[in-house]
Amino acid sequence: MPALMGQMMQMPLMISSLIVHAARHSADTEIVSKRAEGDIHRTHWKATELRARKLAQALARLGCSAGDRVGTLAWNGYRHLEIYYGVSGSQLVCHTINPRLFPEQIAWIANDAADKVLCFDLTFVPLIEKIASQLTSVKHFVLMTDWAHMPASTTIPNLHCYDDLLDNESGEYAWPEFDENTASSICYTSGTTGNPKGAVYSHRSTLLHAYASALPDSLDCSAKDVILPVVPMFHVNAWGLPYAVPLVGAKLVMPGPHLDGKSLYELFESEKVTFSAGVPTVWLGLINYVQQNKLKFSSFKRTVIGGSACPPTMMRTLEDEFGVEVIHAWGMTEMSPIGTLSKLKTKHDALDPEAKHRLLEKQGRVVYGVDMQILDDDEKPLPWDGQSAGNLVVRGPWIISQYFQYEQSPLVTVNGQQWFPTGDVATIDADGFMQITDRSKDVIKSGGEWISSIDLENIAMAHPAVHEAAAISCKHPKWDERPLLVVVKKPGAELTAEELLRFFDGRIAKWQIPDDVAFVSEIPHTATGKIQKLKLRDQFKDHKLPTA
Amino acid sequence: MPALMGQMMQMPLMISSLIVHAARHSADTEIVSKRAEGDIHRTHWKATELRARKLAQALARLGCSAGDRVGTLAWNGYRHLEIYYGVSGSQLVCHTINPRLFPEQIAWIANDAADKVLCFDLTFVPLIEKIASQLTSVKHFVLMTDWAHMPASTTIPNLHCYDDLLDNESGEYAWPEFDENTASSICYTSGTTGNPKGAVYSHRSTLLHAYASALPDSLDCSAKDVILPVVPMFHVNAWGLPYAVPLVGAKLVMPGPHLDGKSLYELFESEKVTFSAGVPTVWLGLINYVQQNKLKFSSFKRTVIGGSACPPTMMRTLEDEFGVEVIHAWGMTEMSPIGTLSKLKTKHDALDPEAKHRLLEKQGRVVYGVDMQILDDDEKPLPWDGQSAGNLVVRGPWIISQYFQYEQSPLVTVNGQQWFPTGDVATIDADGFMQITDRSKDVIKSGGEWISSIDLENIAMAHPAVHEAAAISCKHPKWDERPLLVVVKKPGAELTAEELLRFFDGRIAKWQIPDDVAFVSEIPHTATGKIQKLKLRDQFKDHKLPTA
Repeated sequence: MPALMGQMMQMPLMISSLIVHAARHSADTEIVSKRAEGDIHRTHWKATELRARKLAQALARLGCSAGDRVGTLAWNGYRHLEIYYGVSGSQLVCHTINPRLFPEQIAWIANDAADKVLCFDLTFVPLIEKIASQLTSVKHFVLMTDWAHMPASTTIPNLHCYDDLLDNESGEYAWPEFDENTASSICYTSGTTGNPKGAVYSHRSTLLHAYASALPDSLDCSAKDVILPVVPMFHVNAWGLPYAVPLVGAKLVMPGPHLDGKSLYELFESEKVTFSAGVPTVWLGLINYVQQNKLKFSSFKRTVIGGSACPPTMMRTLEDEFGVEVIHAWGMTEMSPIGTLSKLKTKHDALDPEAKHRLLEKQGRVVYGVDMQILDDDEKPLPWDGQSAGNLVVRGPWIISQYFQYEQSPLVTVNGQQWFPTGDVATIDADGFMQITDRSKDVIKSGGEWISSIDLENIAMAHPAVHEAAAISCKHPKWDERPLLVVVKKPGAELTAEELLRFFDGRIAKWQIPDDVAFVSEIPHTATGKIQKLKLRDQFKDHKLPTA
Repeated sequence: MPALMGQMMQMPLMISSLIVHAARHSADTEIVSKRAEGDIHRTHWKATELRARKLAQALARLGCSAGDRVGTLAWNGYRHLEIYYGVSGSQLVCHTINPRLFPEQIAWIANDAADKVLCFDLTFVPLIEKIASQLTSVKHFVLMTDWAHMPASTTIPNLHCYDDLLDNESGEYAWPEFDENTASSICYTSGTTGNPKGAVYSHRSTLLHAYASALPDSLDCSAKDVILPVVPMFHVNAWGLPYAVPLVGAKLVMPGPHLDGKSLYELFESEKVTFSAGVPTVWLGLINYVQQNKLKFSSFKRTVIGGSACPPTMMRTLEDEFGVEVIHAWGMTEMSPIGTLSKLKTKHDALDPEAKHRLLEKQGRVVYGVDMQILDDDEKPLPWDGQSAGNLVVRGPWIISQYFQYEQSPLVTVNGQQWFPTGDVATIDADGFMQITDRSKDVIKSGGEWISSIDLENIAMAHPAVHEAAAISCKHPKWDERPLLVVVKKPGAELTAEELLRFFDGRIAKWQIPDDVAFVSEIPHTATGKIQKLKLRDQFKDHKLPTA
């Protein structure tokens, strides 16, 4: 006998339903964008949903059909948002490309995804002129602007004006319903080695992630918020905020190309932003600007920081000086991206402020929908004692099972369940607070013991004269590897290697203190702001430690 | 060509995953229950998940297989929670029965659902002894207690001791994975006419509802909360809290059978409850107790009130006297139950306190996952102007498409979409705030115009001498129907019909003021606390209005 089935309405989870919800129930709630054209643009959810429908019509007119990829090279703005919904909502696949990659990488990715249409902001006209001839699959180029800003002459073939395409459509378009497991968007990971690989999200995974991301112990989004995603829409879909914001009916503020401290501060204040999200480096610029000009935030209440580990000093500055709550989060492109967030439980009420801070500095607890565990090198689960460090694996409905066009499964099987190996090394404590100690390939193996490069970097970053620090392994004749600290000093600061190493005394076990410090003028980063440790290790491969 | 599919992990939404999540990530977070046995019991999520697995084993040993129904007659407590998960998690169907119904109704419902096992609290031994012989489908009766509390002798056949059943199992049980659209639980609506009808929820609908219910603009649940559901687990699954609480990893406090003001207050204080949920009548008792004893709440911050419209005076008392935020909510058994909640938007920041209150007194905005509209009698959509009142219809993945074992669809088709008719009459304003003005069958039709019985009741309830009021239609030779107010005075209060009717002056349009007042000692209620208007109308069918 078959089991009894539920008797509920069968409605597939469709991305289009998010913008329809916002258009119906938050019709006049604003979407404010600083445009690549230089001005401020104001619209609302009702108008945006209509324009997304017009875009769906326009893309069909250009010959797109179910499953076709539409690439974007664009900043955070209302047109990019329309593309998210007009593309995914009409069963096409939105492929956001990171414009900070090298031109040849961009071309490689667009070709790998076989993008049929490529939409791009004014900023990227010179880039597209350069690579258009290499983009073998692209049939139509769409410049995301109005007639007035179209270039008088260009070498880009089949170039369309975005606003013009929309103006030619009626908007009389009914969002289709289809299998919720259909692909909705693709993001490529900017791996530090090998070719980038695509994560293919579905309507189902995107909507489950959207629900989870808005929860009180996640990003805590409501209709009382004004949300400014500093994290770009080409960086794992701005961590899902373009979906979570219409879900809750909040006001959305889009910063466009200008992510410097002054531009951001002015937008935060003029639009009364309450909540933001971004990688640590962007907050550095904002904090510096606000400090240097002795300013305050009048509405900014909390921010989520992820992408790479947030230095504890940054958390303290934002909280103590500016009253901005920092939510430390961790995720991956392969995870849509949210995995964990550091939010306290009732049981932590009694902790003293320092103990609370130490918990909040961890990457935190999983949100429901994600599970995790740590494994030793034989794939045996390790205890959740806050001490044992192991390879972090995760599972859940918004985590990839496969990379785009790769046959080989990236998953590992543990006790009959499939898990995605994150490539991170982490501890988990009895309350489920996870802390990343390293990327598995960045860990420093000294005499058989592991030293966390992140711990060393966090201590160095707490020194007032240090602007940025990276700890890497350096060959050592006796210990196999020993830590070398690579440091960029703050402008005008005085600091010697000896002074900085003394700063580690009492802050970490003696045998973990780096053997040497190398001062440099710049540390190399990937296009998404991560330190390129591979490059650094290569740069210092012949470095002779004083202990060697 | 088939559309491109997403490449995410395929994991069905299983109710068991909620308790597994809580057991893994909130292992030692407490579940505190006031038991039918009279004492306080303390456990935590890890132990509860283990016992739910043992229950799944025990039910299989009793001969249950996929799709079989397990009935419950039980208060809110940890064993009832174990049943929720042990039953649904092992692909059986949890059928919570309202023990406040008449015995013959209970027997009818258990037989209609063909419950194979019936679990019940100590309180209900006499009831089961009375009806056991009528329960034709029940093979096993399970008394939810330990050996020490088992009755020495009883007429109940095939009686098992719940704790004993669990103690005989190992707990070595792996939660199965199956189709997420499988039935997980059944609730019967206690209709005021006709036989009760069953709503059959699925794992999918329950989990989507759980995500939505915990959102900041819904019940706003987090791991910092201590949550006490006063609303019974037999009343639409305690509005989903037994699912939302493990989702967020909060502490859960279960009040058992004692819902009087003193018992509740003591539990709120001893367990530091932050959030609760219940119908208006239960708050009356708690408020009276706290006022009479000049007490304060030390941890209680907010409560959701639904089930029937919350009188504005009750909202003001809780907020102004006790600092408890009231979230006015609306839903139905057929909606799992959450539909709307009254939470303000950023745009309302500028409103004066009175205007805010008027908005908060409405039933509020839909949570994402539910859509609604109002229709005229020809099923044409009415404008969202806050004035036009029409028949409220809803749709969404946690709303029923059909009643259990009814072939006829209850849905109506509007513009090609199927909607569930709620039987409520409501207005919706431009911001999506819905306000119920009546049950469609309770509306008073005076000279072709509709008068809202709820408006009249809210005004009457604001009079200091009124304990409870019900407005019903009364036949009128000229106007067809005119309102009659049926009133229970507060103990010892003096009030005449003239005084009460004068109280309406200036509070509502003159033509809507009731024609007469009838003072009674009691107003009849359904088992779920709703006023039985049908019975009242019948009682006053020969009442002669002074205007007639």
